[in-house]
Amino acid sequence: MPLSDDQQSEIATLRTSPQSTLRAVSPGMEKHLYTAHEVLDHGFVRVVDYMGDDAAIVQAARVSYGAGTKKSRDDSGLIRYLMRHWHSTPFEMCEVKLHVKLPVFVARQWIRHRTANVNEYSARYSILDREFYIPAPENLAAQSTVNNQGRGEVLTGDEAARVLEILKTDAGRSYDNYEAMLNQEGQKGLARELARMNLPANIYTQWYWKVDLHNLFHFLRLRADEHAQYEIRVYAETICDIVADWVPAAYGAFEDYRLGGVNLSAKALDCVRRMLKGEDVTQETSGMSKGEWREFEATIA
Amino acid sequence: MPLSDDQQSEIATLRTSPQSTLRAVSPGMEKHLYTAHEVLDHGFVRVVDYMGDDAAIVQAARVSYGAGTKKSRDDSGLIRYLMRHWHSTPFEMCEVKLHVKLPVFVARQWIRHRTANVNEYSARYSILDREFYIPAPENLAAQSTVNNQGRGEVLTGDEAARVLEILKTDAGRSYDNYEAMLNQEGQKGLARELARMNLPANIYTQWYWKVDLHNLFHFLRLRADEHAQYEIRVYAETICDIVADWVPAAYGAFEDYRLGGVNLSAKALDCVRRMLKGEDVTQETSGMSKGEWREFEATIA
Amino acid sequence: MPLSDDQQSEIATLRTSPQSTLRAVSPGMEKHLYTAHEVLDHGFVRVVDYMGDDAAIVQAARVSYGAGTKKSRDDSGLIRYLMRHWHSTPFEMCEVKLHVKLPVFVARQWIRHRTANVNEYSARYSILDREFYIPAPENLAAQSTVNNQGRGEVLTGDEAARVLEILKTDAGRSYDNYEAMLNQEGQKGLARELARMNLPANIYTQWYWKVDLHNLFHFLRLRADEHAQYEIRVYAETICDIVADWVPAAYGAFEDYRLGGVNLSAKALDCVRRMLKGEDVTQETSGMSKGEWREFEATIA
Amino acid sequence: MPLSDDQQSEIATLRTSPQSTLRAVSPGMEKHLYTAHEVLDHGFVRVVDYMGDDAAIVQAARVSYGAGTKKSRDDSGLIRYLMRHWHSTPFEMCEVKLHVKLPVFVARQWIRHRTANVNEYSARYSILDREFYIPAPENLAAQSTVNNQGRGEVLTGDEAARVLEILKTDAGRSYDNYEAMLNQEGQKGLARELARMNLPANIYTQWYWKVDLHNLFHFLRLRADEHAQYEIRVYAETICDIVADWVPAAYGAFEDYRLGGVNLSAKALDCVRRMLKGEDVTQETSGMSKGEWREFEATIA
Repeated sequence: MPLSDDQQSEIATLRTSPQSTLRAVSPGMEKHLYTAHEVLDHGFVRVVDYMGDDAAIVQAARVSYGAGTKKSRDDSGLIRYLMRHWHSTPFEMCEVKLHVKLPVFVARQWIRHRTANVNEYSARYSILDREFYIPAPENLAAQSTVNNQGRGEVLTGDEAARVLEILKTDAGRSYDNYEAMLNQEGQKGLARELARMNLPANIYTQWYWKVDLHNLFHFLRLRADEHAQYEIRVYAETICDIVADWVPAAYGAFEDYRLGGVNLSAKALDCVRRMLKGEDVTQETSGMSKGEWREFEATIA
Repeated sequence: MPLSDDQQSEIATLRTSPQSTLRAVSPGMEKHLYTAHEVLDHGFVRVVDYMGDDAAIVQAARVSYGAGTKKSRDDSGLIRYLMRHWHSTPFEMCEVKLHVKLPVFVARQWIRHRTANVNEYSARYSILDREFYIPAPENLAAQSTVNNQGRGEVLTGDEAARVLEILKTDAGRSYDNYEAMLNQEGQKGLARELARMNLPANIYTQWYWKVDLHNLFHFLRLRADEHAQYEIRVYAETICDIVADWVPAAYGAFEDYRLGGVNLSAKALDCVRRMLKGEDVTQETSGMSKGEWREFEATIA
Repeated sequence: MPLSDDQQSEIATLRTSPQSTLRAVSPGMEKHLYTAHEVLDHGFVRVVDYMGDDAAIVQAARVSYGAGTKKSRDDSGLIRYLMRHWHSTPFEMCEVKLHVKLPVFVARQWIRHRTANVNEYSARYSILDREFYIPAPENLAAQSTVNNQGRGEVLTGDEAARVLEILKTDAGRSYDNYEAMLNQEGQKGLARELARMNLPANIYTQWYWKVDLHNLFHFLRLRADEHAQYEIRVYAETICDIVADWVPAAYGAFEDYRLGGVNLSAKALDCVRRMLKGEDVTQETSGMSKGEWREFEATIA
Repeated sequence: MPLSDDQQSEIATLRTSPQSTLRAVSPGMEKHLYTAHEVLDHGFVRVVDYMGDDAAIVQAARVSYGAGTKKSRDDSGLIRYLMRHWHSTPFEMCEVKLHVKLPVFVARQWIRHRTANVNEYSARYSILDREFYIPAPENLAAQSTVNNQGRGEVLTGDEAARVLEILKTDAGRSYDNYEAMLNQEGQKGLARELARMNLPANIYTQWYWKVDLHNLFHFLRLRADEHAQYEIRVYAETICDIVADWVPAAYGAFEDYRLGGVNLSAKALDCVRRMLKGEDVTQETSGMSKGEWREFEATIA
């Protein structure tokens, strides 16, 4: 269970204490506030706070483009226009703060997105809990044979059993020894900032992560992508569902132009044009390398 | 008058339409929402939205430092500790969005602070209003005779009159000619993106500016400082008053450690220590240059 | 003439004083160092320093992906792969520092790109030169009748003459009055930080601008685009030529995937697929709005 | 040994292949290029590239402040002035790229500094080496009894032996099992992106890290501080030595104003002033809390 009883009851209290505000309110987002969306075996995503809604994006765009904009286009159309033409600053006017519990190896990927604010639980200061990510059987994938950075088939039988046994045993023993080193009964006890180095990368950590909508979309485009590692993708997908409720028009535009959209190179665009005119373009006449042509064919198929 | 009748009535409507939210609410900030605080002759600062309060800073710090922190220190003491020891990330968990109307030459200084989100009124797309900053007589300062980057005495008499006459006349004529070039009656009309180049730097622009509290404090420390140019300082001071109502504990710590605090170099600290032990330190024995010693003497006097 | 005789002779000296270094050297970039590339009537772009070359991008990628990468792919192919799959961090490993002289209204657009380092000439501290951008006759464009944010036909005849006369006269008078207010003979002289507010947006300023290659590409994609305002586009095009000499493989990939590439939405991609299968797709059956369909048709034509 | 024979011989080759450049060259930095400075038991810091020198800082400042600056102040004095008055942009005009090998738990602290460019070795793509940080006996510290986030005495005797045994054994077994899971002989082999989660936080990783001098100074102020964890502090100290050779004037100013300097709050400054006038200030009359007064007394003693 990702949240303690204390935390559950704190959330219940917060959710029954609405207050009055003059700020923009997103009804779709209010229903998510504080509630933990479970991810993986012990992780979660919780919305702690948010700023703005679809109307806030439009309002910011209209500061830029003046009153004239007001009449000529409805809000959703304007948001699509902004997304299509890479006008990113109006989307920066929305902000969200999440509380996320996640394995350390996922946190290490996540933090590479630098344009966000982070407060992580400090294992220098405090003692981490005994919680480790152990993949569900259907996620225990073999190394891909075609892609260094990917997964192949699911492990089965003895091999799957051996891997699960290793992951559980090593995590348990590492944590036992972490505690043994920290222990101050009958010994001094190793400094926390040192003892933590014995813990494996599947231990859970948690942080507050605050980001604006433009940078969140950038994160989601990369991490909700099918090539992202499964263990971060499930967090991204959970956040996608939340964002769809928070700013439905912006999320719709994001889905169409970014998540579902593709980037064609000049060469690929030229091929598409020629093909639409009836030419039978092949890899040899495309100007693309074999690998690129394969990707191109998969795109337009 | 900085806001049109339409805008005033829109604000009045917004301010009489409270909604229910589960988010953290800062009562001190709610009272500022949407209202225009007048600055200079046509400028203003308006709070459009905010995220978080003093408790949000503490909450973020406690994610980092664990539950142990909870008992040992009250919120205000913890906030002072964080500020004193440069733990900046908890302050990044608060965010504010302002609507600011300001002269272009002030905007040009302001934008040098890059860690913020900005949507500015586009003079490429829309037509700017005929509004210019003309200093009040008491702010019509001469060039400093000791500091290239500063002001001296206030201009008076004929010189003051001449300067005011120039500023008003040139601004008016530039704007008349801007309109004449744009005019599409009997001529094509110059493109807006070109015509704007005739406008002087004291014309007013406006933008939405969104920033987290840590970076806002950094901005305020530099721009509410007595060495900042008067015309940006009055904006910073207005924002200081708003922040004091929004996050009183954090603002109190900021005032003590940053606004009112000083940085002593290793050399200066050494001098203070020697002086406190009774030594009669002089510039010659201080290890400082003459200019630096002068600044040091002013600091400790 | 954009550079003074003193500056020209300083450049000549610098260019005849090669030194020995162990760092990566880009021969194509060395030939640009310090030399001013003229832009508009008084502006320029000068390379002041650079870090890295195509090989530095590859080297950084290989830290990430390990030695295995070395054999399987040549440098240029790897660079194209990185660009195609949005692996941006290796491109961040190259950096360039430019000295740019540009009109203030161009500088105001440029500075919106925040991920760069900037040192601008301070009109608070120093006195600006009497240099203004006056468009060449062929760039004196009318307001577009279809796009609020664009240009239409070129002005001609009396209207062109009137506009040029206004721009020249207003700039000259504003500068005369700037000098008159600053003057300290027989009067105190207005503070520089105030007097500058009388100067129009076509006065030239200058700055040092330092940026990494990834963020520079982002800037160039937006500003070398045909929809960018002419006056900033000519700077972007000048920089494009420099970058092509500095990192030819990276620039080639940028040209193919970004400058010449297009982004297709999910809807647009679906239309392309249907059209390639022989379906006669129309706006009505495309799922796109009329405006979007027009843009789509222009893309694939 | 931190570098392989291949790498050592590549470095030797690079160091014997000087090339000619027109760029600014820092002789003090050239001598560091490529050479590995050993840190901890298997780590290192290597300078891969740099941009600028002390003169580049001055040159950028003079773009801002105009030619007048040139005569009135020598370079070192100007650099001290810039540092004293928080003019940070000229320091951003220098850049350095480091290759660092470091334990993962150090990397996790380091990456919290977001204003830098990073390419880290990918354990998703490649297989990590069997190298772990095991503290030297004199660094095997107990948890501090007064500071949650600090170290106390050094462990000795049986406890020290037990801790070292645990760290070595657990690291070894975790790595053996990592290899066993990856192994593709007679089984499919677990995906690298999953197998890595079994590795403890004292395993070594490596990255390219590129940062400007201003942000590097900020990093060094926090991480070369005596309160920083020993294992990151030794990296910071190694970098300090390198920077002192690269930009001696800037580093001197940094040492005086930042590393050796202190920040006095308004209250503390008031106490110093009163004490210098002969008043016997106590905690009770200081306006400070007990904890803060203790820190203050330690500062001025």
